[in-house]
Amino acid sequence: MGRITALLGAVLALSGVVACVALASGQGDAEAVPVFVDKIPPGYRDWKLITVAHEEGNLHSFAVVLGNDVAIKANREGKLPFPDGAIIAALHWRHVPSEENNKVFGRSQSFVAGTPTNVQFMVKDSKKYASTGGWGFGHFNGRDDKPAEKTLLQTCFPCHNAIKARDLVFSRYAP
Amino acid sequence: MGRITALLGAVLALSGVVACVALASGQGDAEAVPVFVDKIPPGYRDWKLITVAHEEGNLHSFAVVLGNDVAIKANREGKLPFPDGAIIAALHWRHVPSEENNKVFGRSQSFVAGTPTNVQFMVKDSKKYASTGGWGFGHFNGRDDKPAEKTLLQTCFPCHNAIKARDLVFSRYAP
Repeated sequence: MGRITALLGAVLALSGVVACVALASGQGDAEAVPVFVDKIPPGYRDWKLITVAHEEGNLHSFAVVLGNDVAIKANREGKLPFPDGAIIAALHWRHVPSEENNKVFGRSQSFVAGTPTNVQFMVKDSKKYASTGGWGFGHFNGRDDKPAEKTLLQTCFPCHNAIKARDLVFSRYAP
Repeated sequence: MGRITALLGAVLALSGVVACVALASGQGDAEAVPVFVDKIPPGYRDWKLITVAHEEGNLHSFAVVLGNDVAIKANREGKLPFPDGAIIAALHWRHVPSEENNKVFGRSQSFVAGTPTNVQFMVKDSKKYASTGGWGFGHFNGRDDKPAEKTLLQTCFPCHNAIKARDLVFSRYAP
């Protein structure tokens, strides 16, 4: 997969926290056989809050990052790397103005969650996902339960691998 | 309390979802004796997600809106008015650029939660808070457990009362 293609695909298709760029990771396609997250972890919409994010550029994307209990505990204890069993979910929506709120506030200042764009997951399993830093990556468009195409999923790891010191995780726990 | 003072105080001091403007509510200070939320509801940081919000203008504020189980159930069922016992929490941070993320993405596009600015609560109790539409309003600066000044708290209800059709609640559940 060409680096430019991967970069463009990632910047256009992904939104936010689990966004990607293509970087030299030292692992070519021939070496890495990534395994992806193909099922939505049940109950993720009930998980606890890690943080929020907002991506501009071409994305106009609003994100909430939630974690299962294992991920929340690791976040609160500030421990890295994340233990096996940790799952991080990034819920994305379009970042849109709220006419309803602006009317009350009397000024254009308010932005809210618009159409859901995708949900992305990072699942820590150091054996199963050994070829991608111990993390399995998942991407589900809209609120579908059908995983995204492999060409898109392949762009996740190279980008997350750029933040190795944080165990490949961009989001930081918000107090 | 002068209307202009209330408006300015609200726009400057509050951030986001539970922000206020002064409006003619039909209730002067002489008639209404508002009761405010003076204690932080325990465990709110573990509550489930209602939605996100972002206020620009003078605020540059990032919000996450969480709900206790009663509030989440009412949101998911789309039922209004909210039943007694519902509590909505709006956690606010400064909306700040993330140099860390931008470096990886190779462009200035990423905003994250900065310094915590305040936490606001709406507590539904139709008897206790009868003079303010059945909702008690609370505001705690930073992540302090000391309630904000009454002059600030008095600005909450007049603004929320402008969205009566939604039972005084601005936030809408994000799928």
